Amino acid sequence: MSESIKSLELLAEQFGKLGGVGKRTAMRLAFSVVDMTEAEAERFAEAILEAKRNIHCCPVCQNLTDLEVCPICSDLSRDRTTVCVVADTKSLIAIEKVREYNGVYHVLHGMLSPMQNITPDDIKLRELIERVASEDIKEVIIATNPTTEGEATAMYISRLLKPAGIKVTRIANGIPVGGELEFADAHTLACAFDGRKEY
Amino acid sequence: MSESIKSLELLAEQFGKLGGVGKRTAMRLAFSVVDMTEAEAERFAEAILEAKRNIHCCPVCQNLTDLEVCPICSDLSRDRTTVCVVADTKSLIAIEKVREYNGVYHVLHGMLSPMQNITPDDIKLRELIERVASEDIKEVIIATNPTTEGEATAMYISRLLKPAGIKVTRIANGIPVGGELEFADAHTLACAFDGRKEY
Repeated sequence: MSESIKSLELLAEQFGKLGGVGKRTAMRLAFSVVDMTEAEAERFAEAILEAKRNIHCCPVCQNLTDLEVCPICSDLSRDRTTVCVVADTKSLIAIEKVREYNGVYHVLHGMLSPMQNITPDDIKLRELIERVASEDIKEVIIATNPTTEGEATAMYISRLLKPAGIKVTRIANGIPVGGELEFADAHTLACAFDGRKEY
Repeated sequence: MSESIKSLELLAEQFGKLGGVGKRTAMRLAFSVVDMTEAEAERFAEAILEAKRNIHCCPVCQNLTDLEVCPICSDLSRDRTTVCVVADTKSLIAIEKVREYNGVYHVLHGMLSPMQNITPDDIKLRELIERVASEDIKEVIIATNPTTEGEATAMYISRLLKPAGIKVTRIANGIPVGGELEFADAHTLACAFDGRKEY
């Protein structure tokens, strides 16, 4: 009978498209919306459209931002000669929380994966190469996840940048192998930065 | 640094208001929206507004519906002399899935709770009394959850309706005590209907 409330079904379907939301959770979330006031539902819908409208990639580091240039790239106190390469904004946020790293970033928005057919053209690699060619960068720290894709991506980047005479390092295995950078605790992340090795 | 992406923070805050969504999940869901295409985000926002605009209470049984009268109340093959009283639409959906019950419903949209200050005026009780007074109803089956609030609500309704000479029954304890009707399996729910006792 739930199929008879068409609008509820359609909303649950939309929730079901979000990452990690199953059928039962999607229906629960849809019911939450019905329990909202009209004004609350409008604020929610507006927040979705605003986020989509305002958030874009920083032209310098490709980090997600709703400003013209992201706050990290605009921060003059940060060391622009060190670039930390991460797979996504979630990893960047995790590293920023530790307050150990004072360089800048480059966000790839993905990792190389022959299995999922993700090639160098599908991630922000060209932007990294252009940046290394045009800016005064002394070290590139690769902080992709220590998974198969993350290691392959790190290896690919190091081979690409080494010939240009740039120091390319990889964060240490303080992060449990197979785990996700996003969920690492502050201490583990700090260790990983301290113990980084040159390729 | 996540606080620097204001639109993302605001969206995560909105997700956090939905039932059972913690801070980390809210942020994950907000990132899912950023990963959507513009068209997908618009469809999502529209589904929220549509659900809120279209879904209202059926004037007969108070069930949520986006039609003028809900499909159960408009179904002429259903027995209108038997009314099953449930706390919410989720319970109704659970019962409908079993396909054992052929009467109609009355949705209270809540249960009496002195602790949470929910009084008879806060739920759709007046509508039930008016219905019993004006329609030809032979039996009222109370199918609220077997929790403290559910039992208290059932007791309150039975005392209210018994003097009017109506048969008031309670679904049997096939449902595990303390559990939630929404999550009961089909067989347990069927047992509960079969074993109902008169007050």
